[in-house]
Amino acid sequence: MKATEFLIEKRMTDVSGKSLLGRVGVLKTPHGIIQTPAFVPVGTKATVKSLTVPEIEGVQAQAVLANTYHLYLQPGESLIEKAGGLGSFMGWNGPTFTDSGGFQVMSLGGSFGTGLNKFMTRAELEVSGGRKRDSALSKGQLSRVTEDGAEFRSHVDGSVHFFSPERSMEIQHKLGADIMFAFDECPPADTTKEYQRVAMERTHRWAKRCVEYHFSKEAFKRQGLFGIVQGGSFEDLRIESAQEIRKLGFDGYGIGGSYMKEDLPDILRVTCGELEEEKPRHLLGIGEPEDFFTGVENGADTFDCVSPTRQARNGSIYTHSGRLNLKNARFKEDLSPLESGCDCYTCTHHSRAYLAHLFRSNEMLAATLSTIHNLRFVIRLVEEIRSSILNESYWSFKKNFLSEYKAREK
Amino acid sequence: MKATEFLIEKRMTDVSGKSLLGRVGVLKTPHGIIQTPAFVPVGTKATVKSLTVPEIEGVQAQAVLANTYHLYLQPGESLIEKAGGLGSFMGWNGPTFTDSGGFQVMSLGGSFGTGLNKFMTRAELEVSGGRKRDSALSKGQLSRVTEDGAEFRSHVDGSVHFFSPERSMEIQHKLGADIMFAFDECPPADTTKEYQRVAMERTHRWAKRCVEYHFSKEAFKRQGLFGIVQGGSFEDLRIESAQEIRKLGFDGYGIGGSYMKEDLPDILRVTCGELEEEKPRHLLGIGEPEDFFTGVENGADTFDCVSPTRQARNGSIYTHSGRLNLKNARFKEDLSPLESGCDCYTCTHHSRAYLAHLFRSNEMLAATLSTIHNLRFVIRLVEEIRSSILNESYWSFKKNFLSEYKAREK
Repeated sequence: MKATEFLIEKRMTDVSGKSLLGRVGVLKTPHGIIQTPAFVPVGTKATVKSLTVPEIEGVQAQAVLANTYHLYLQPGESLIEKAGGLGSFMGWNGPTFTDSGGFQVMSLGGSFGTGLNKFMTRAELEVSGGRKRDSALSKGQLSRVTEDGAEFRSHVDGSVHFFSPERSMEIQHKLGADIMFAFDECPPADTTKEYQRVAMERTHRWAKRCVEYHFSKEAFKRQGLFGIVQGGSFEDLRIESAQEIRKLGFDGYGIGGSYMKEDLPDILRVTCGELEEEKPRHLLGIGEPEDFFTGVENGADTFDCVSPTRQARNGSIYTHSGRLNLKNARFKEDLSPLESGCDCYTCTHHSRAYLAHLFRSNEMLAATLSTIHNLRFVIRLVEEIRSSILNESYWSFKKNFLSEYKAREK
Repeated sequence: MKATEFLIEKRMTDVSGKSLLGRVGVLKTPHGIIQTPAFVPVGTKATVKSLTVPEIEGVQAQAVLANTYHLYLQPGESLIEKAGGLGSFMGWNGPTFTDSGGFQVMSLGGSFGTGLNKFMTRAELEVSGGRKRDSALSKGQLSRVTEDGAEFRSHVDGSVHFFSPERSMEIQHKLGADIMFAFDECPPADTTKEYQRVAMERTHRWAKRCVEYHFSKEAFKRQGLFGIVQGGSFEDLRIESAQEIRKLGFDGYGIGGSYMKEDLPDILRVTCGELEEEKPRHLLGIGEPEDFFTGVENGADTFDCVSPTRQARNGSIYTHSGRLNLKNARFKEDLSPLESGCDCYTCTHHSRAYLAHLFRSNEMLAATLSTIHNLRFVIRLVEEIRSSILNESYWSFKKNFLSEYKAREK
């Protein structure tokens, strides 16, 4: 008995009727179902920034994704386990995801390609409860990848810590999310192909260690584990990575990696083309409105991204004709809603002028109301993509949306 | 036809059956009734900091009090008028209050007793749309009181502005709150009796000008005007002030002024003793839990105070045994609610450990959840005071509450 299950409701075809990788489905988890495609809001530190749980429910979010790196550092995975797991700790009854911590651990380092081939042994690291006494990190160095895992400095207090694939699994078991991700190495988009291969192959070895650890514990019955495909922008590496990761028996997949945005469709298509149809695929860190079309057509089922919430806190508001910035003087006396026709709480109760006032006054409510709108905007967009696939109006829906939507802020 | 009406439901007596000034009543306003005694949350800039309107409703607030000084500076009273008034602008359908701006204008100055007797004429001030070109304020001086009104520097951009009693009325008419306050001068608690008299007498002259302005406009039919009694800690001044203010035909009264906390019962008793029983009395800026008993017994009907919300944002939480600070290490792993038995959203859904984590992580939700609790705590306390008066258990309720409650943070 697996913790998660994925059922396909309908497959996409292109305008000429040719099969595509995209589909509509249902992802079943121990804390409820997720109708896919779905956008999953990010709740990094066990809170979707500035929103209460009823507000997360109000935007019709189906799940929340939190961050293993952040929760390990603060408040610690043991407290969250004691509280009954991530959902219980934050008061969210629906499905939860935790990422593996790999991306955060390493993106904080900024030391890719420098000395990363100098593997250390576990003995060398002298790990003590995950926290190191004698660090191999040089002064000012923030992270270092070895065959065993990644050593990193806390962004909170500078203390040195170590994540191995096994440690990531152990922490994620305590966090108790419905869906966990394997510990991976995610180099930046401008990394050489040579280093992308090094990182990818290490990610495969780590994936195997994650699977061995996870499926040897009782937790596999209540938590699904997704393996992460890497390979940067290189299609041959992506194909190889998908084939290797597929062999390991994961419950689903994460499509990871940094790459140029224009490469997204090809990368995703070749990757998903190598994966079993019956397993769900999560596109990590992607979620600008225009990306959902590319993502869904090429086989992604779920998405997470900090962009809608982060932009909201900066006053940048999604509308069907593009983003607008509430700090712009022209909104000071604009008594219309953020977007007319939007069904979110903010649009049905407040004006642009009120939000513009809240932003200018540095009032916290500005973040809350803007976040509600931006999240509802992307969630509703993905809901509409889903409906349009089911009722076979996807291509006209896409055309209409993209003809109006401008990706750049107005 | 007056805008507001006050009906007394029950009068208080002391333990021996002797009549007291306190009472239970209903204050009728154009936007609904307020069952008194009542605590009115402060929404300085047309937002109760960090709360949405459903959350304000959720703590069972009956009204919101906003700030004329702040709203005049940002976003400006004309925009709020255009939006349909304060309630409509902030999306709050219930009763609203606006203070007169006097306290903020002058408390920003810190120049009491220095040169304040040097009155200027209006001509001297050369006011232009409320905003002055040539200021009589010396460099670094933040405010200056004259017979005509108060000149002050904006805390936002340092620009110089002028409020007269008439201008305060004009602004408050545009803000459109159900209950407005007359423009007053409020010296600090350590002011000499001599200067308290100067300020009090000016407050009376200003009160007369407010009444003349207000009741000559249509607005008096939809907005009640409360006169403010001053006189500091001096009982003879308070009596004189109440007698003078009473003569002017206000819809109700504000008890203003800074004074030592131990003087509150006497000041309030002698003041309310001079006021008509059938008009409501608002105790300005008072609202620590232990103060409500003193306030209600001595004749106050409504209260506002930033303390519950401000303390919440600092992690200081009201409980029946006193305040506790969530930043204290002992709450890090405490999975119990902020206060067991509390009916607020926060206590029924979250743990101390979760809030302690949010505070340590500088997450905005910390402020929201703490504010919900602290507001509900004081509102529920005043609700219980009301019920206990109605069912004649006030004295035992007070005794029980105060025997447990410690005013200092634990």
